[in-house]
Amino acid sequence: MKAWILAVGSEMLTPFRLDTNSLAITEQLNAVGCDVRLKTVVGDDLEELASWFRRAVGSVDLVVCTGGLGPTEDDVTRDALARALDATLDTDAEVLDAIRERFKRRGLIMRDINARQALVPRGATVLPNANGTAPGLWIERGGTGILLLPGPPREMQPLLERAIDAYIRPNAGDRGLFRRVIRITGRSESDVDAVAQPVYSRWVQAPVPISTTILAKMGQIELHLTADAPNEADGRAALAGAVRELLDVLGPCVYSTDGRAMEDVIGDLLRERGWSIAVAESCSGGLLASRLTDVAGSSDYFDRGVVSYSNRAKTEWLGVPAELIEANGAVSEAVARAMADGIRARSGASVGIGITGIAGPGGGTPEKPVGTVCIAVVTPNGGDVRRFTFIGPREMVKFQSTQAAMNMLRLHLSDGPSVYRD
Amino acid sequence: MKAWILAVGSEMLTPFRLDTNSLAITEQLNAVGCDVRLKTVVGDDLEELASWFRRAVGSVDLVVCTGGLGPTEDDVTRDALARALDATLDTDAEVLDAIRERFKRRGLIMRDINARQALVPRGATVLPNANGTAPGLWIERGGTGILLLPGPPREMQPLLERAIDAYIRPNAGDRGLFRRVIRITGRSESDVDAVAQPVYSRWVQAPVPISTTILAKMGQIELHLTADAPNEADGRAALAGAVRELLDVLGPCVYSTDGRAMEDVIGDLLRERGWSIAVAESCSGGLLASRLTDVAGSSDYFDRGVVSYSNRAKTEWLGVPAELIEANGAVSEAVARAMADGIRARSGASVGIGITGIAGPGGGTPEKPVGTVCIAVVTPNGGDVRRFTFIGPREMVKFQSTQAAMNMLRLHLSDGPSVYRD
Repeated sequence: MKAWILAVGSEMLTPFRLDTNSLAITEQLNAVGCDVRLKTVVGDDLEELASWFRRAVGSVDLVVCTGGLGPTEDDVTRDALARALDATLDTDAEVLDAIRERFKRRGLIMRDINARQALVPRGATVLPNANGTAPGLWIERGGTGILLLPGPPREMQPLLERAIDAYIRPNAGDRGLFRRVIRITGRSESDVDAVAQPVYSRWVQAPVPISTTILAKMGQIELHLTADAPNEADGRAALAGAVRELLDVLGPCVYSTDGRAMEDVIGDLLRERGWSIAVAESCSGGLLASRLTDVAGSSDYFDRGVVSYSNRAKTEWLGVPAELIEANGAVSEAVARAMADGIRARSGASVGIGITGIAGPGGGTPEKPVGTVCIAVVTPNGGDVRRFTFIGPREMVKFQSTQAAMNMLRLHLSDGPSVYRD
Repeated sequence: MKAWILAVGSEMLTPFRLDTNSLAITEQLNAVGCDVRLKTVVGDDLEELASWFRRAVGSVDLVVCTGGLGPTEDDVTRDALARALDATLDTDAEVLDAIRERFKRRGLIMRDINARQALVPRGATVLPNANGTAPGLWIERGGTGILLLPGPPREMQPLLERAIDAYIRPNAGDRGLFRRVIRITGRSESDVDAVAQPVYSRWVQAPVPISTTILAKMGQIELHLTADAPNEADGRAALAGAVRELLDVLGPCVYSTDGRAMEDVIGDLLRERGWSIAVAESCSGGLLASRLTDVAGSSDYFDRGVVSYSNRAKTEWLGVPAELIEANGAVSEAVARAMADGIRARSGASVGIGITGIAGPGGGTPEKPVGTVCIAVVTPNGGDVRRFTFIGPREMVKFQSTQAAMNMLRLHLSDGPSVYRD
C-alpha cells in the first residue's frame, strides 16, 4: 500500500516548527506494510489543500492528513476535503452534542464557531476524539482512503491507532516493516560502516530483506535495521539474526540492541551487581549525574555527585592534593584518578568516576587543546584512566565526556550478561 | 516571491529523520522577502522528482531543493532536473578537477562513480562547494529559479548564502520578514495568551504588520513575532515597539527578549554583580549545574555543585541536620533551605540554591505527589523558598525544577538592568 502524509498549517512553513507527527505516523503505517511515498506541508490555504486531495484520489491507497481541524477561519481541512470530493458538509448532531458536553464539563461557554468542528463531509465516518473537540474523519473515494486527524499529538495518536485497526490493517494483511536499532559508541561513522557494510549489504537480497541506515548522532552511531517481512514473527526472527551478525563483526563497541540508552545500560549493570555509584565532574558540569539520574529508580544505585569546577572544590571536597594539581595541571590523568578515588572514598560508593577537561571555547593550550578530557573509572575490580580529545562545541564536549565515561565503566564490567540483550 | 522547498531522500520518509534543513532555508528566504508556500519530501525516485520540477516551473518564483547530489545510483537530483528541463548533462571539467583534487589531498583514490558529481545540466551555473564534493547548481527556466543544494548542513549552508546573495536578493528588493522571540516562564500558555492576544491581534493591521505565534515548550512559553516590513530598519523598529507593548502587559514573567536562554540570563545577572554560585540538587540530579555550565565562561562564576541523592550525602556534605530531615521529610521547604544554606556556607559562594523533590515515576505520596519540588534560593540580599507541583514525566519534572530555580533567582535579582534587553 502506498501512502501520502499531508501536514496542514502555516506555522510549519515558518522557521519555528516541523511536522513531527509524520514520524509516528510513518512508523505505524510501516508496521502494517504501508509505504510512505511523499510528505507535504501545506499552509492554511483552502484551494491548495483541495488540489492535494484531488491529486491523491485514485493515485495512492491512503492519505493521512493532520491539522486544520480547529474551530477558526484558518482551519480549512474539512472545507478543502468537501470541495475536492464535491461533498456537502452536514452538521453531525452527535459530534455537536459531544462538543457542547465538553465545554459544559469544563464550565465554559461554547462559542458559535466551535460548531464548525461538527461539520462532516457526507459519506465520511466520524472517529470520536476523547482528548479534544475535533473528531477524526475517514472517507473512501476512488480506491483511496482519506484520514483526517487533529494536529495535537495526544489527540492525533489514539485516533490514528483506531483508524489503522478499523480501516487500514484489515486491507493490509500481515506484511509489514519491523525495526531494530543498534547503538555504538567509541568508533567513527566511517569505521563502523567499513566493518558493517559488507554484512548488511547482503541482507537486501535475503528472503526477508533488511535495509540498513547509519545515523551519526552526538557521541554515538546508530544502525537502524528495517525488515520487510510477510509477518511479525518472520520479521523479528530475521532482525535477531541480523543483530547477531553485526555483533560478531562490531564487537563490544555495541552498547545496546534493544533501544536502551547508555544510562539505562549502566543502571542495569550496577543493579545486577548491587553496586552504587558516585561521580566527580569538572568539565562535564553535572551532565553525567543528570544523565545517570534520568533513569527511573536510579536512586537505588546513584549515591551522589560533585561538580568541582574550582580547584579549591577538588581539594576540599574530594581530597585531591593541591600539589598534584600544581604538578600535573587540573586537566590530567592523575587528577582524574584522584577525583574518582576521592569521591569513591568519601561517599563509600562501589564505583567512582572522575572527569576533568577543557570544554571550551576558551581555556585551550597547545599541549591541552579545547576538547582534551581525562576520565578515570574506579570499581571494586580495579580502575582505568584515559585521555580523550573530543571535537565540537562546548555542549558536544560535555556530552561526549559523559558518554565516554559511561562507556569505560561498561567495558570494565562487560563480563556481565546484560551488555547485549536480544 | 513564492518559494517551494523540496527535500530529496528516502531516509526522510522513514520514522527516523526529518527535513530539518528547511527551517534554516525558510528563515533565510523569509529575510529577503521570499515566502515559503510548500514543503515536500520526496524519496530517491527519479520520475517523481522530475514531475515536481516540471510542476514548479512557471508556477513559483523559486525552488530550493536539498539532497540527492551524492555519487551513488540513489542520488537522482541532477538527472531528475535534466529530465524535467529536457537539458543535456555535461561533465564540468573544473568540478571534476576539484573533486579529483579533494580526493588527492586526503590521500584517497577517486572512484569512477564520483565523476557523476561533476555532471551539470546545460545552462546551469555551478556553485563550488568548499566542504564537500557535490557543487550547488542554479538554473532559471520559465521565470522560476531552481537551486540545488547538497543535503549535509555544513555544505548546504554556505552555498545557500551565496545563492541568496547572487541570485535571490537582487530580485527581491528590501522587503523581508524579520523576527524576535520573547521567552516567558512561570505562567501557563492560556494565561499568557489571554493577556497577550488583545495586544498582538492589533498588530496584524499595523502599517508594518506583525504576526505572532505562541509556542509552549518544556518549562517555558515562547512568543515568536514576525514583522513583514519594507526594509530591515522598519522591521526592527516595529518589533522593538511590539516587544515593549508585550513587556508592559506580561511583566516580569518575561525573562528574555533577545534569544538568550535562562542560563545565559542568570550568568549575566551574576557577572554584573561579581557574584559566584553553588548549587545543591536532589531530584534535578545535576541538571541545574549542567545547564549553568552550558554557558561559555561560566567557570568565572560557577563554583561547585553537589548532587545529594541520599540523605547521608545531604547531612555529611551539606550539613543538613538528620533531625530536620526526620521531622520534615527530605522533600520539604526546610530541607531545601538547609541545602541552599549548606552549600553556600561550605563553598563560600555568594548564591546558594537547594532543590529537593520527587521526580517520579515512583516515590509519590498523597501529601507529596510525584512532581512536588521544594526550591530555596539564598543570596547576600536574603532568600526565598517555594514549593511547586510540576506535571509530566521524570525528565520534565527535572527540567521544570531547574527552570523554576533559575527563575526564582532571576526575580530575586530583577532590580538589575539586564533582565530585559532591547
